[in-house]
Amino acid sequence: MSAESRMAGAQPFTALLARSITASGNARPTDEQYAAARRILVDWLGVALAGTTEPVAKILRAEFASAEGAASVLGGGRASAADAALVNGTTGHALDYDDVQQFIGHPATVVVPAALAVAETVDAGGEELARAIIAGYDAARFVGTLAMPGHYDHGFHSTATIGAFGAMAASAVLMGLAPEETENAIGLAATQAAGLKSMFGTMAKPFHAGRAASAGVIAARLAARGMTANRESLETDQGFLATQAHQPVPADWRAPRFGESLDHLLFKYHASCYLTHSSIEAVRQLVIERGLIPDALESVVLRVPAGHLKVCNIENPATGLESKFSLRQVVALTLGGYDTADIGVFNDMLAGDEALGRLRGKIGVVGDLDSIFGARATIRIGDDTMLEAVWDVSEADIGPNDLDDRLDRKFSVLATPLIGAARVREVLDLSYDIRKTDLAKLSASLHIA
Amino acid sequence: MSAESRMAGAQPFTALLARSITASGNARPTDEQYAAARRILVDWLGVALAGTTEPVAKILRAEFASAEGAASVLGGGRASAADAALVNGTTGHALDYDDVQQFIGHPATVVVPAALAVAETVDAGGEELARAIIAGYDAARFVGTLAMPGHYDHGFHSTATIGAFGAMAASAVLMGLAPEETENAIGLAATQAAGLKSMFGTMAKPFHAGRAASAGVIAARLAARGMTANRESLETDQGFLATQAHQPVPADWRAPRFGESLDHLLFKYHASCYLTHSSIEAVRQLVIERGLIPDALESVVLRVPAGHLKVCNIENPATGLESKFSLRQVVALTLGGYDTADIGVFNDMLAGDEALGRLRGKIGVVGDLDSIFGARATIRIGDDTMLEAVWDVSEADIGPNDLDDRLDRKFSVLATPLIGAARVREVLDLSYDIRKTDLAKLSASLHIA
Repeated sequence: MSAESRMAGAQPFTALLARSITASGNARPTDEQYAAARRILVDWLGVALAGTTEPVAKILRAEFASAEGAASVLGGGRASAADAALVNGTTGHALDYDDVQQFIGHPATVVVPAALAVAETVDAGGEELARAIIAGYDAARFVGTLAMPGHYDHGFHSTATIGAFGAMAASAVLMGLAPEETENAIGLAATQAAGLKSMFGTMAKPFHAGRAASAGVIAARLAARGMTANRESLETDQGFLATQAHQPVPADWRAPRFGESLDHLLFKYHASCYLTHSSIEAVRQLVIERGLIPDALESVVLRVPAGHLKVCNIENPATGLESKFSLRQVVALTLGGYDTADIGVFNDMLAGDEALGRLRGKIGVVGDLDSIFGARATIRIGDDTMLEAVWDVSEADIGPNDLDDRLDRKFSVLATPLIGAARVREVLDLSYDIRKTDLAKLSASLHIA
Repeated sequence: MSAESRMAGAQPFTALLARSITASGNARPTDEQYAAARRILVDWLGVALAGTTEPVAKILRAEFASAEGAASVLGGGRASAADAALVNGTTGHALDYDDVQQFIGHPATVVVPAALAVAETVDAGGEELARAIIAGYDAARFVGTLAMPGHYDHGFHSTATIGAFGAMAASAVLMGLAPEETENAIGLAATQAAGLKSMFGTMAKPFHAGRAASAGVIAARLAARGMTANRESLETDQGFLATQAHQPVPADWRAPRFGESLDHLLFKYHASCYLTHSSIEAVRQLVIERGLIPDALESVVLRVPAGHLKVCNIENPATGLESKFSLRQVVALTLGGYDTADIGVFNDMLAGDEALGRLRGKIGVVGDLDSIFGARATIRIGDDTMLEAVWDVSEADIGPNDLDDRLDRKFSVLATPLIGAARVREVLDLSYDIRKTDLAKLSASLHIA
């Protein structure tokens, strides 16, 4: 399909997106939307703190952080807002443990570091930060619903490309860009959008997130200084959609409502492949409800969608990394009482642990479940007791209080080794109501000595 | 054509390019190759100095330049090597007056600022700078011959995208990257490559050049620190070529020889649309050879390729910008003794000048020449004297001495208003033999008070 026919009848997407971004700056989020923004923030902060010890994060800090700069770098030092977003965005994606959204990939790791860096330069509070995060998620969803899945299928890493629009929107809201400036900022984001899926498995993948966060900050800052770009950058001939969407605009497309992108957030609660999460949750349910002791188990059968077997069914993992892609190991860890939220349990030693190995031997995996993300666990105890649980993490069927508890625990597990329990408590207290969060204090609490 | 079938039988392009880049670091350029590198440098320096007063250059300096940093910013201030490349790359492309090469677009404005910034951080001399420039041009040609013209036709601004590879190669040579590091740097350039042709006519276009220069510097610097990327980034499934070349690899493709990209450099000697250049040259030849006086002219007929009439045939330009796209005005300026190398003659006042208007009235343009870039000028003097000259700037049929004279004059015209005649002489003397150029002294001579 030619660019011309694909775009025939296209709507003025760029103007619509600009209007949506500027409107977000004056929006009044609901309590639940503020709570969602707080979850996004806390989840990302924990993952990013834990990421600071990864080699790619150290490389980025060595290159870009110094004693000077308008914004804080996680792991130590300061940098310009754009470079802080670059380092922190990379750091937050280094562990592949950040949130998931179908129309972009991983929104938090691009939107949040951009928002935090710009918030620091304009001395914003938690309320403005929350609005910026929501605007960033909405903008990413706006472009994502136009371009996905064709864009991703063609080979572009949407977290990087579509993420740049999210980072730009968050920055634009914090800086109070006018509609015309916002259209220019959208153009500057569109023309910087880059990142190839073929980089997965290398340090370039997390770097994409940082680069997108930085591109968004730069787009907004330059637009605020009067920089111009094509103001129909999404829909124009040879614009972003014509060159990179690789799909027609959906016939029933409409602009997302404010905060619509928060309706169905997916967080990872386990430091393993997302496709192992439903199995962990199903087994975890039985462990909690029945107080199971590993020794009492006869067998466990996991039923999962057939496709998962190609991704996360390493039978006897030898390393921590392989453990992340082993349904048997993650379920053995869960049965053994280990906290799979902790990146530390995915190590080579536990991969070779004898007791866990015996547990793995009792676990069978069958790929016949009619689902996309779900899992069904059947546990036999003795001769005649059968327990069964089903779970689907993509259904996110947990109440808000439980959600907050789990995210707080995830943050605690990830952050405590780096900043200690007292400051973990401080961060959670400070962010309890994001509207009242003092960002300077938050930043001080996150400092790694 | 699917990515799979397109790439079937593809060569290991990334490894070949890495080998070519590392070999360039030890190459012994010929005298003519050093001379070519010197021409590229001087041409770009003049254009970039003149660009420092453009609004986009001021915006970039305000955002990125400060008193600190490892590298010099043209127009004042310092910045990190990457940010200096970003500002200077943008500045050098702001006037659209830099050099032209069919397989990339405008190589100098991406390669030279990256090379200069990195050279300053590693304290290189002119000889190393020249090798880096040549390596950068060769790398851009390498990728360009694989991706062009399909890449450009699809909507990508090749100066920005393919330019990133050139900037990376120049940086890698100056930093002495090992082959494996260079493969990673190629991947980091590939995954940052971005820039949409639909931005032409806005400040985003020159920004592309800066962004590419910066991306190349960052790619090389991060690779030197141990950053990894896909090491088959050009040829891999969903790599740079599969996602963005939009053409099959030419069946007879081969890696360029060292310095091959210097064989046919195209410089602009006039601050107007490249498609007006052959007409200016043809008329200029007659003016110089015959000492023509405008009053003696009866008529001028310009024959040009039909396609040029759509681009640069504004009959009676009202502004300086329109004058750049008016064959009649540029030829009237030439006949009137104005120097069309000077951006200053493309102003609104001269567009409205009466004497030039009378000259324009004597000029006819016919679009019937069977050529791509050429022009044929026929001048009638009195009743029976007819003069005729043909020219094709893409044939570049001028000897090396004349070429140097013209580039020196172009530099002088552009730079004198900014740094004065004495320092113009200094720059030309310092660069006369690029092997002996002291880059710190050169940088000092370019300083704008």
